[in-house]
Amino acid sequence: MPIDYSLTLVADADFFKKIAVPGASGRDLLGIVDAAVQGGVTVVQLRAKALPFREFLDLGLRAADRLAGTGVPLIINDRIDIALACGADGVHLGQEDMPLAAARKILGGARIIGISVNTVEEARAAEAGGADYVGAGPAFATATKETALPVLGPEGIRSIKRAIRIPVVAIGGINAGNAAALADSGADGIAVISGILVAPDARRAAEDLRKAYKR
Amino acid sequence: MPIDYSLTLVADADFFKKIAVPGASGRDLLGIVDAAVQGGVTVVQLRAKALPFREFLDLGLRAADRLAGTGVPLIINDRIDIALACGADGVHLGQEDMPLAAARKILGGARIIGISVNTVEEARAAEAGGADYVGAGPAFATATKETALPVLGPEGIRSIKRAIRIPVVAIGGINAGNAAALADSGADGIAVISGILVAPDARRAAEDLRKAYKR
Repeated sequence: MPIDYSLTLVADADFFKKIAVPGASGRDLLGIVDAAVQGGVTVVQLRAKALPFREFLDLGLRAADRLAGTGVPLIINDRIDIALACGADGVHLGQEDMPLAAARKILGGARIIGISVNTVEEARAAEAGGADYVGAGPAFATATKETALPVLGPEGIRSIKRAIRIPVVAIGGINAGNAAALADSGADGIAVISGILVAPDARRAAEDLRKAYKR
Repeated sequence: MPIDYSLTLVADADFFKKIAVPGASGRDLLGIVDAAVQGGVTVVQLRAKALPFREFLDLGLRAADRLAGTGVPLIINDRIDIALACGADGVHLGQEDMPLAAARKILGGARIIGISVNTVEEARAAEAGGADYVGAGPAFATATKETALPVLGPEGIRSIKRAIRIPVVAIGGINAGNAAALADSGADGIAVISGILVAPDARRAAEDLRKAYKR
């Protein structure tokens, strides 16, 4: 079944820990995931680079449980072991994570592998290596993820989209206010972190992003 | 083929980084592994909790390459993804790493899974969960690994050995000087870190440890 990459929520547990109001009810990460899915999120990527292993695993297992039956795939960032342990639909790998060829060998052909790219060359290498999609970014300047990579802007996203045939998901600094500026880049979708995680109403935020990024 | 657990070298890359003399020739970690295998090491466990992912992966791939054909199994500490990527023979898991049941599901029955235990209860749980062996420790006080766990001593190792049927490997603070004190504990072997990594001659250190721990 083809994946609908329209709107990815990157549920970043490290970022969420920083912004979470202690004791605030109804503001747990998986509650936000639920609400965002109701609002139109089509892919959930779980990221937790700094979380202790067992906490990440527990979060992955609970996310898989929540998403079961929704049709929304769960992608685990970086950790193939956690993806396997929680029966996730795939992994998203950065340029410093497991090499694509090794990941494909471990995961087989049935699981989704996405690759972070910043250049046309990286995008072509990901496609040639058998990636299912690329996450191209940063689309805009972002404070969520510390990175020294050059901002691509709508033009950079378009160049990557033109260079490859696999789906391109734009990521980095995207919110309902600037998503429209990406709309004619040709990207197959957008991925959002703070635009949903810091919103007072995650469902509404997802709805607004879907409307703003009409292609 | 049954594994000979007589002498495990825990090749701890983090510890080695701390003690390594910069620029000293012939003192790379894999060179020590080679020499130790020549001296009688029967299992190599690669541990690198603090190493960047790609460095750990590279080290694992090179270790697998070096050990191919020697009959000495390569066990990767903690990271199942790295074990799979470098075709290692198994993994060694601590009580905070991947749960045994999940690890067995991912790795299947053909790969070795060892579990760190400090108590008879943990040892029984590891055996009941399908572990291939346990690493019981700390046998003696150790500075290599920061731990608040109580030292088992020869008596504690003996209690664990009596409680289970799978092989017991004693670990923690073991060197050629105190290995003999463990000899009648019934343990199937010993695992050593600094006792080999800091020795001026790793081959000789392994030979001395084999002699000292004659059961």
